[in-house]
Amino acid sequence: MALVSFFIDLSVTKLQHAQCWLYRHLEGHRLLQFLSWTVYPVSLCTLSTAFSHSLCPCSAGSGLPEVRTILSGVELPDYLSLSHLFAKLVGLICTLAAGSSVFLGKVGPFVHLATMTGAYLDRMCISIQGKEEITAHRDMLVAAAAVGVASCFGAPISGVLFSVEVMGTHFVVRDYGRCFFSAACGALAFRILSVFSREQETVQALFKTTFSSDLPYHTPEILVFALLGLLCGAVSCLYLFCHRWILQFAKTNKVISRILATEKTLYTGVIVFLLASVTYPHCAGRLMASELSMKQLLTSLLDSRQWWSLSQNASGLPPPKLSPESLWQEWGPSGASVYLTLGFFLVMKLWMLVLACTLPLPAGYFMPVFIYGAGIGRLMGEALAYMFPNGFHSEGKISPINPGGYALAGAAAFSGAVTHTLSPALLALELTGQSTHAAPVLLATLIANALARSRHCPSFYDAVAVAKRLPHLSSLLRARPGLRAVRLGQVLSGGGEVLERRGGVAEARLALRASSQSAFPVVDTRESQLLLGSVDRRELQRFLHSATDGQTGPVLSTQVSDKQLGDVCLIQPMTVQASAHTTVQQAHQIMSVLSAQYLFVTEKGRLSGFMTWKEMKKVIEDLANGRIE
Amino acid sequence: MALVSFFIDLSVTKLQHAQCWLYRHLEGHRLLQFLSWTVYPVSLCTLSTAFSHSLCPCSAGSGLPEVRTILSGVELPDYLSLSHLFAKLVGLICTLAAGSSVFLGKVGPFVHLATMTGAYLDRMCISIQGKEEITAHRDMLVAAAAVGVASCFGAPISGVLFSVEVMGTHFVVRDYGRCFFSAACGALAFRILSVFSREQETVQALFKTTFSSDLPYHTPEILVFALLGLLCGAVSCLYLFCHRWILQFAKTNKVISRILATEKTLYTGVIVFLLASVTYPHCAGRLMASELSMKQLLTSLLDSRQWWSLSQNASGLPPPKLSPESLWQEWGPSGASVYLTLGFFLVMKLWMLVLACTLPLPAGYFMPVFIYGAGIGRLMGEALAYMFPNGFHSEGKISPINPGGYALAGAAAFSGAVTHTLSPALLALELTGQSTHAAPVLLATLIANALARSRHCPSFYDAVAVAKRLPHLSSLLRARPGLRAVRLGQVLSGGGEVLERRGGVAEARLALRASSQSAFPVVDTRESQLLLGSVDRRELQRFLHSATDGQTGPVLSTQVSDKQLGDVCLIQPMTVQASAHTTVQQAHQIMSVLSAQYLFVTEKGRLSGFMTWKEMKKVIEDLANGRIE
Repeated sequence: MALVSFFIDLSVTKLQHAQCWLYRHLEGHRLLQFLSWTVYPVSLCTLSTAFSHSLCPCSAGSGLPEVRTILSGVELPDYLSLSHLFAKLVGLICTLAAGSSVFLGKVGPFVHLATMTGAYLDRMCISIQGKEEITAHRDMLVAAAAVGVASCFGAPISGVLFSVEVMGTHFVVRDYGRCFFSAACGALAFRILSVFSREQETVQALFKTTFSSDLPYHTPEILVFALLGLLCGAVSCLYLFCHRWILQFAKTNKVISRILATEKTLYTGVIVFLLASVTYPHCAGRLMASELSMKQLLTSLLDSRQWWSLSQNASGLPPPKLSPESLWQEWGPSGASVYLTLGFFLVMKLWMLVLACTLPLPAGYFMPVFIYGAGIGRLMGEALAYMFPNGFHSEGKISPINPGGYALAGAAAFSGAVTHTLSPALLALELTGQSTHAAPVLLATLIANALARSRHCPSFYDAVAVAKRLPHLSSLLRARPGLRAVRLGQVLSGGGEVLERRGGVAEARLALRASSQSAFPVVDTRESQLLLGSVDRRELQRFLHSATDGQTGPVLSTQVSDKQLGDVCLIQPMTVQASAHTTVQQAHQIMSVLSAQYLFVTEKGRLSGFMTWKEMKKVIEDLANGRIE
Repeated sequence: MALVSFFIDLSVTKLQHAQCWLYRHLEGHRLLQFLSWTVYPVSLCTLSTAFSHSLCPCSAGSGLPEVRTILSGVELPDYLSLSHLFAKLVGLICTLAAGSSVFLGKVGPFVHLATMTGAYLDRMCISIQGKEEITAHRDMLVAAAAVGVASCFGAPISGVLFSVEVMGTHFVVRDYGRCFFSAACGALAFRILSVFSREQETVQALFKTTFSSDLPYHTPEILVFALLGLLCGAVSCLYLFCHRWILQFAKTNKVISRILATEKTLYTGVIVFLLASVTYPHCAGRLMASELSMKQLLTSLLDSRQWWSLSQNASGLPPPKLSPESLWQEWGPSGASVYLTLGFFLVMKLWMLVLACTLPLPAGYFMPVFIYGAGIGRLMGEALAYMFPNGFHSEGKISPINPGGYALAGAAAFSGAVTHTLSPALLALELTGQSTHAAPVLLATLIANALARSRHCPSFYDAVAVAKRLPHLSSLLRARPGLRAVRLGQVLSGGGEVLERRGGVAEARLALRASSQSAFPVVDTRESQLLLGSVDRRELQRFLHSATDGQTGPVLSTQVSDKQLGDVCLIQPMTVQASAHTTVQQAHQIMSVLSAQYLFVTEKGRLSGFMTWKEMKKVIEDLANGRIE
């Protein structure tokens, strides 16, 4: 995955350089520049939409909600196929190459790519070993999710925390060491690759910052960081509300939903053209630092110098354009103050971000949110630097306020609040290698999270999962808490094949034909329905084979062998049974904790139904559609 | 807990200052100095042993194995009592004040203290709310464990990772946010306290290092870090072997076991006198830097300068003794090379550490192991610096090798390997605030862990849990994998009170008197044993009350009321049942995941036994004692 990540980054950089080159060479021709600014991302995004849709229609979006669903135990084979992997990879490169005017990221699809690769490796291992088991691969997928985050940013520990958070209800501690190992390998390989490609001198953080470590911040500033956390939490609520509204609107508005169903490419083209026009640097884009790429945006926002004082002291020859030292100048173009630019950036990007979420192409939404949060923090930091130009005094020492620290805390807090997770706090520290700000970053993230979760709103991923009708129980229960009390008795259909202990060959053959389930319950008699245990599909096939063995010619299905199922087959005893009063949530937990493929439901020893993951998927879908109340 | 931690540190510093003052004032009188050097720790340690033993006999040792057992679901009320808390607190302060000659740490007992405080707060909340539930407090204890690590070192994130690792099999993701919040509060408060006490200027790491961040290490050095991981893993295996041997020896040797049973104080005195004599600075202690306290030892080992070149260039007036800049001089006393001192330190401390583990007093074993690992890393780093005095060349830039980085990696790798955990890697980074070395530290820890776990040896905590016969299932299964296959049918005693649906008041009264269990199973008839559900203890008491209501005078126990249990009481239906074929491990998992207080075992609908946590504790103890094969 480190290789894949490196390859994606390399391709994207090359494609973006091409656009920059074209744009620079058209200097002076406003119209041609406008066309190159808009048509390039439009063509890339429409290509991304068309390609990914034609190869695999479900490959649009982030992929993280789907990964969460798969990790919760439900099987979604479409989301782990090779064609999906290919569609997502190419689509993602195109989307990212469209640059900062579309403002989309890499993490979500990359984690999905890692999961698909993990699943593929797992299938390969199983086929080499010759086993037919399909249950073993959950450990692999959990580790793959950690690898995804780790090799996307070179941040192993936040990768592991991410995989703890993504696991829904219970994290199996056995997987912890594996996650750590694979994440560390991924992150190390990703960083070593960037050393070999001469990007960096040695293995170090991706967005390395150089904050002063003697006195990174004064103790009273911790209160300001807490305030920043509150602010980020509040803005995240607004953002999530807009996001939920637009998801609902795109589904209920007839015109939009019809266009999204049939003319995806057209829709992408129009929206991307709109976004690119708004960010055109000779127009409103001038006030949004739109010439910076996503990486440059983040680097500039994390700058430890005060822009306000820099813009006051700007004199002499400016350094070359877009060098790391002069990135801030994009935020204070001639005449405009940095506060105006930052404010305008925040206002405009909010609706642009929400709009970009509806684009039907593979894209991540974490990095944009992270940068947006950095913008909020930066604005607050700059405002504080304006109010206290000499910093806080403590024991005679004067150290100026560092707005970069606020940007870091804001990024972690806002992205944490939007996704309802805490791993962004660690990610922010690992991305920048800035451990001095650990305490305030963590504090801001916690406060923002507390505010965002306080009103039981669904998180970004929950909202997408509910809107896409993914069979993810936790998201559904968070969106509609009333469903927690639904019991198995209300939802079980009671279907499925049941075998009798005294059953013969004919019954076994019928059951094998009628159903593809991996195990069949065995009852004493059909009248009593007293559950004895279960018999494996393969055991049943062996029974059939042994019963018909030695006979020549086709065996008529009416011909009854003397052999009885109970005498020949090994009936496996039950380990655990549920009752009709068990809630769906409890049944889900038991099945995922014991990694069981089925759960029998009994009433006074009598079989009253049984739950497989397929059945569970159907039940969750029924709950989501309101078919069960 | 931050306040408690701060208070402990303050008291220990004062007590150690007193010893230093005494020792310095006796300069010139060798015998008096020897006496003050040995008698001071002997008296403190015997006080610690005597006090903690008289208040609470089970308060000796680290407490972490006990915390793990409690978190796995088994109740050990003795280990959460207030008297235990007090005994541990005072004992710990005395042990720590004995200083580096006894070489014991703070973490384990402090985590135990945090857990006890958490349990006490929880009991207080419950009694204020007036509830009688006893099941709710597991969340609290998990968070308390995170707080323990966080406020001991000011390291919130490793606190959370620690609580994930300590949870045995399944970590409830719901607890994750709570752990993070309380750990961040604890760590922040601990660090702010040290700011207010003028120890530090602002909130920063406890053992802040100043490694160069431009080129912290060359890429080829990663291989050396991997080698260091291997070495630490190998040494940890040796250490764990010695530790297991001495635990076994102390138990089987008649003389030692009798002394440990009856004359704990004497034993402590003799051993501590031996340890202190060996470290006497005018004798062998001169070669072990024994004048440094635990904190100074770690600070000196993490020094980024090369001792070897420092000792070559030592000239002019030496800086004042024991200032942070001159700590290294303790490692290279006149005439002796730093390699000799470091090697001697490692050889001597190994057996001293193993011996100190047998002392019957409250003490932590993590910090000593951490420092020992730092010593291994330092020796390797210094050797490398000797071999490559100018460092590795890369593109014309020369940067010398930093032995402090190796010490950091060694500390994390060795302590991780001894405890079979990965959180020490993050702890090392958080303790020093040194994010540049994240990748090599993680790599070394992973390799050391892989080596230590490769031969299925029990970890340090597992060994203590097995030796102390704690009812901790995971430790037991790791020590004796054959027990994984033990099924409930083999272990269930079949005891416990069972009620009949048609049972009357007399039966209910008998059951309530005979057993203290919180719920009783209800069967259809005693003959059929068909399980209908369970009835709460309080429900049963209400039934008794309603049946005898209105009657004056004492109710004879033979008087049978007309009312039947099934008509009056609410019989709660089963949510989940196990069978006799469920393994003990599975039953344990189900009970802890569903946080159930009991688990009914049925066979074809008939009750064949039931499992409570009390019963589970007994079963694990029986398994440990070999009473069940």
